[in-house]
This record gives sequence, structure tokens and C-alpha cells, in this order.
Amino acid sequence: MNHSHEGFQNLTNVDVALARFLQSVRKPGTQTESVLVAQSSVRVLAEDVVAKSEIPNSDRSVVDGFAVKSVDTQVASDRNILVLRVAGESRLGKPCTGTVRNGCAFAIATGSIVPKGADCVLPVEDVRRLTRHKIAVSNPAKPGENLLRKGEDLTRGKVVLTRGRLLRAEDLGVLKILGIKRVRVVRKPRVAILSTGNELVDSQQSKLSSQIVDINRLVLSAKVKQFGGMPIDYGIVKDRKELIIETLREAVKIADMVLVSGGSSVGPKDLVPSCVNAAGKPGMLVHGVAMRPAMPTGLASVSGVPVISLPGFPVSATFAFLIFGRPMMTKLSGAKSVPEAKLQARTLEGVKGVKGYRTFIRVVLKKSDEGFTARPIYSQRASVMMSLVAADGYVVVPEKSGLIPKGRLVDVTLLT
Amino acid sequence: MNHSHEGFQNLTNVDVALARFLQSVRKPGTQTESVLVAQSSVRVLAEDVVAKSEIPNSDRSVVDGFAVKSVDTQVASDRNILVLRVAGESRLGKPCTGTVRNGCAFAIATGSIVPKGADCVLPVEDVRRLTRHKIAVSNPAKPGENLLRKGEDLTRGKVVLTRGRLLRAEDLGVLKILGIKRVRVVRKPRVAILSTGNELVDSQQSKLSSQIVDINRLVLSAKVKQFGGMPIDYGIVKDRKELIIETLREAVKIADMVLVSGGSSVGPKDLVPSCVNAAGKPGMLVHGVAMRPAMPTGLASVSGVPVISLPGFPVSATFAFLIFGRPMMTKLSGAKSVPEAKLQARTLEGVKGVKGYRTFIRVVLKKSDEGFTARPIYSQRASVMMSLVAADGYVVVPEKSGLIPKGRLVDVTLLT
Repeated sequence: MNHSHEGFQNLTNVDVALARFLQSVRKPGTQTESVLVAQSSVRVLAEDVVAKSEIPNSDRSVVDGFAVKSVDTQVASDRNILVLRVAGESRLGKPCTGTVRNGCAFAIATGSIVPKGADCVLPVEDVRRLTRHKIAVSNPAKPGENLLRKGEDLTRGKVVLTRGRLLRAEDLGVLKILGIKRVRVVRKPRVAILSTGNELVDSQQSKLSSQIVDINRLVLSAKVKQFGGMPIDYGIVKDRKELIIETLREAVKIADMVLVSGGSSVGPKDLVPSCVNAAGKPGMLVHGVAMRPAMPTGLASVSGVPVISLPGFPVSATFAFLIFGRPMMTKLSGAKSVPEAKLQARTLEGVKGVKGYRTFIRVVLKKSDEGFTARPIYSQRASVMMSLVAADGYVVVPEKSGLIPKGRLVDVTLLT
Repeated sequence: MNHSHEGFQNLTNVDVALARFLQSVRKPGTQTESVLVAQSSVRVLAEDVVAKSEIPNSDRSVVDGFAVKSVDTQVASDRNILVLRVAGESRLGKPCTGTVRNGCAFAIATGSIVPKGADCVLPVEDVRRLTRHKIAVSNPAKPGENLLRKGEDLTRGKVVLTRGRLLRAEDLGVLKILGIKRVRVVRKPRVAILSTGNELVDSQQSKLSSQIVDINRLVLSAKVKQFGGMPIDYGIVKDRKELIIETLREAVKIADMVLVSGGSSVGPKDLVPSCVNAAGKPGMLVHGVAMRPAMPTGLASVSGVPVISLPGFPVSATFAFLIFGRPMMTKLSGAKSVPEAKLQARTLEGVKGVKGYRTFIRVVLKKSDEGFTARPIYSQRASVMMSLVAADGYVVVPEKSGLIPKGRLVDVTLLT
């Protein structure tokens, strides 16, 4: 009798389990689609984007001022004020035809084309306007000063955005500058979601009901959407082997990943692992993970599609998804991994894990004068939904230590 | 002649400017709407949610096992194995009518109702099944062990989620458990976006054109959406005072915030600040901020609606939005501030700011064995769009220091 393993013979380390699960998928991110640039934010780029023109397309001033020849200003100083003649103007959005000659200056606005002959721009606040046609200069300027050279921002032929990039708002700007109207992105991963259990209902009929409202499909769907996927709801499936197998076989035909919650353990009523094995090869890759919560998690591959058998408790199902489902979605989308943002906080009390398990302790954050503090939620039970809802994030207690002492600086992964 | 201020007489500190801007808005988050719970993720809750029922609605087992009276097990040990009679079963999703009597046990599945008479559950892996009707117990159990008490997760009358909460996926689960179908959320902030400038076009006609493709509306719209707002595109407005004033007056009637990019400085062609003042009271609150980029930013209030006059360079416009627009959106949405997630990295070279200015230096992150390193992008010019696009995040160099030395651990705010 091994109480801590709750019937599991062997538990797999979290990292080993995740690696085995991720390796089961080949050729991710191959399904692509074309979308309007304006709708491409937070999508994963499916192709490299190469600059087909120079940006800017000519030398442009980056200040309001006067375009001049730098040689004309070289001896300028407070004691040797030079006078230049304002011989023309380069106006915003208009071609500039004139040429700047020695001893001359062209008035120029930020963003305008630097006229021929000039090689730098004097900022308006650095010169004194003497008359309409004359300016006084008391600072020397260097060639190239205050202008952006043709192609300095984007050179033709340069790879500007690479395949796998999660497109940001500013990237859309670059695509627009380059005259690109549509862009090829990876199709959103389709994630089939079902719950198993005779006790589950979608709404409670009476206050004294012995049934349980299924919230896993709703929570997982919202998380899948949030992380860039497209959830497909397969509803509640009764605890009947043939029904579960049939649903799994249907789901793997359509979806890029399948999430099945409930019945994931090793008891006689835990039907999902054997159904997963019956649905297709190779079936379960990992069953039972050395983690708390979500220990009775199964990771599988059915006919090339990753399947997660998530424990029924919503807290466990959420962690099984965060630790295994989310990285799999990133892999499926072909996205380059983005650094996970964490926050450092000092523990206000000891953070107790379960030795031998990677323990995800839900904490409440408070801002103090010396940064953030973290305090574990009173109840860490997987059966208590509020242990997740009331938390701002979680602290990972490593398998070996079992305890993080009070007063330590720890990484807190934010729940978003 | 004050070169560094580029024509501005006074520059306002970033924090002072932001505080003044935020204070200009009264009664934020008062416009609300009702949405389906399934569609409420990442919306801001407009009302407290109170539990109207107990969750769970009765004592429930959190393991597969046997419901017993704890007193019956008190003397059990490896040397004193007790035998209990399996007298009934509490099945998932079925009412349990029987009562557990002394010396008896009811088989029970995770999530099932604990039958009358029992006050704890023995996990299946802790007992030995002797016959169909007999189990051997060698561990004592405490009252309440392995069960979740009625109301232990949610007590009736308890405030479960508070007004101003940015709803997370798991919150949707709690709302569903409580039988709530629709929830009142704050209306998404409507943000009017326009660009000014005679040189601006929406697509380049020729490669040699002197015009400039406006990307600020596209980038700002995507950011507004990403941060939970609803952008309203007011297009490109020519550099004509009456046109700009008219558009501003229209926009403040409909929008919760207005973003105007271009013409934000103090030159003769910078029309926006005076137009903002002409459009309504009190007009400009701050003009010129001690920051780089985005120094020529104006913060205003027109007829009670916050207006930002953003510099025309896309990099500057983006930072003006991130530093002033985003916090204003949070305020307008009535959301409680969520801790901003940052990442710590070691500087690979000195990070040079401009003394007297809060400088936002764009950096590239690399993961190394000892965590992340940060290296400033080669060009930090506001006119170079790639200084933003090629960056993973930014480091803030404080006004006083002007320089963060090589080898320092710094906070990097991720660009997302």
C-alpha cells in the first residue's frame, strides 16, 4: 500500500513527461492560412517576411530644421557665428526638386526628404532666424546628423520577421510600411474538449442534487482561446467505454489536440486511460505524473494527435492544462517560445510542497515597499476551486526540497 | 537655445504627468453591459458576485474509497487490523439514502455524497478488500478526512469575485457552479484613433514617393484591442486647424479616450496642441514629458474625455501609448491594477539613457544558463521602427542615473 502514489505504480517526472509528450508530435505548424495584416495580431507567422523596398525610401529629416552641407558649418562656434541663406524648402509629402548649394540652407520638416546637396539637418532650436531668408549658425554639424538614411530602418532583402513569430502590434506596422496587405499565419490549433462522468450536468436541477456541474469544459475552452487556440466542445460523455472511445476517434480526426477530463486515475471507474489506448496507437505515453495537483494525469498520442487525460477536479484539470496543454499548443502553433513572464516575491511563510512531487502552490501577492510578498492560499486542496480563483499566481516547490522557507525570494508565475 | 528640450520650455516628470492625466477622469467604469458567462473572459467585472448557494451542496468524498465512522478506526494499526462490513454504496450522481452504522462502510467514488452516519473516507489504496462485503483497515482516520464539507469551497453569502476583477478562465467556472448565466461587465473602453499630417497616406503610390505610410493607427488599434479596448478609426486628418478641431469634437462625443498622433511638438506645423485646447476645456494638462522616446507628448482632457497627443514617429507613439494610454485604459475600465509582469536580466553592456529623461531602452533578451541577458538594440532612434520590432522588451533608465552599468540585474518589461 503506497498512500502517496494513490494506486499508481510509477510516477513520471514532470520534465520527462512533458518532453515525451511534446516529442510525439511531428511537423507542427504546417496548416496555414492567409489573413489581413490588420487581423494578424497575436497570430503566429508561417513564413519569413523579407523587405522588398528600402525604408525610408530616401534620406529623411528626423527633426524640424534646416538641411545644409555639413562642411559649411565646420568652423561655426559661439565666437564664430555663420550666416546661411535660406534658399528653399522641403515640404512634407511633396517632392523636393531644388539642390542645396554652399552657403545655403533649405527649411525642412520632420519626415521630409533631405534635398540634394545637403548631408545633415540643423534642428530649428539650434539656429537663430535672422530674417526670412537668413539663419545664424553657431554649432558645427556632422555628416548624417539628424537624418535617417535611405534603407537605414529596413534594407531591401533583409528578413524583417521570421517564421514562428507571435505577431505584435508594431509588426503589423512594419508589414504595412512594406506594402503587405495579407500575411500567412499558422492555423489556430483546434482543441477538442470533453468531460466524462455520469455525475456531470451542465446546470444543477435542484439544490440538493447529487450531480456535479461540469465546469472543466468552460474553463479549458476559455484558456484555449486565451492562448490562441480554437476550442471545440464535445460535451459531457457518460462513463461508457464504447461512447468514450467513439468520441475520441471522432475528435482526433478533426482536432490538433484533445483534452478529456475526468476518469483519469487507476480506479475501476477511471475509464479514460484504457479508452485512450483502445482509440488508437500508440495510446498512453505517460500515466501518473510526480506533481501536485494533477498527479493522475495521462499524456497520450492517438493516431498522431496529442491527447491529455486530465483529472476531474477543476484545479487539477487547470494545472494539467497549464503544464502540458499550453506548451503543446505552443508547439502545435509552430511558435518560437516566448520567455514566460514571472514576478519575484518574498515568501511571508514557509511554502510547503509534497516531497517527491513538483508542487504548485497557489499564492496571494501583496505589494509592499520592498517589492512583492507571496502567501500561500489557506487551502491547497485540488477539490477546492477557490484555492485557484483566490490566488494571484503559483510558486513551484521542487521535488527534492519539499519546502521553501519563509523570507525567501521566489518566482511567482502569474495566473492570467 | 536649449538643445535637449527641443524647443520645450519645461518638461514634466513622467510620474507627475501620468498622475495629472489619470486624475482628470472621474467616475470610470460606470458604463456596463451584460454578457454571457462563457464570453466574459478577460472582461472587467462591474459588480460583486456573491455565492447564493453552498459549494459543495453536501459533504463530498475527494477520493475513491470507503465512507466510515472515524471512531470505528481509532485503534486500527498494522498490529490491530480491523474488519468492516461493506453495507452500501454512494454512487456518483445518485442520491445516497442509506446510513452508515458502526462497524460498517459504504463504497464511495470521488465526488460522491458522503452518506449519513459517516464522517470520513478511507482511500481505496489504504484498505485491503477481503471479500465483496469485507474490508481490512490498518490505519486510523480522523473526522473529516478525505472529504470536502458542505460549503467548504463556497459559503452562501460570501463575496466570491469583486467588482473590478479582470475575469480569468477559472472565474467563469465559479460563475457556472453558482448557476450564473450572465454577468455584468464594464463596457470596453472606446478609443478614437486619428493621425494628422499632409504627408500621410494609407498606401504608398510609388517607390519614390515623398509621402509617408501612416502605421500609427494600425499599431495603436491593435494595442487597444490587445489591452481590452475597442478602437474607432478616425482616419488621417490633414494639417488644417478647423479639420482637426472638428474631428476632436466629434471623437470626444463618442469615445472614452482619444489618441491623436503627429504634430504634437512645438514647431509652427505642430497644430495638435492648440487644436486640443480649442476643442474643449480644460485642454492640455501636460505638454512635453521628460522621457525618451516620446518627449513631445501632450496629455489633455477635452470635455471630460482624456486625449493624448502622440508624437508622429511610430516608436514614440507606441511608448506614449504604453506609458500613458494603457494605464488610462485600465482606469477607464474600472479594473483593479494587476501586477505588471517583468523579467529579470543581466546587462551585457552598459545601458545608456539620456540624463534628466526617463529613457526606455529597447533590448534583446537571450536565455543563458544563469538566466536572461539583455543587450540594447544598436539603434535607439525613435525614427527607426526596427528599434522596437527587433526588441523583446525595454529597460527603464532612471532620470538621475543616465546609465546602467554592464553586468547589472535589471527589470525588463516585455513587449507583447
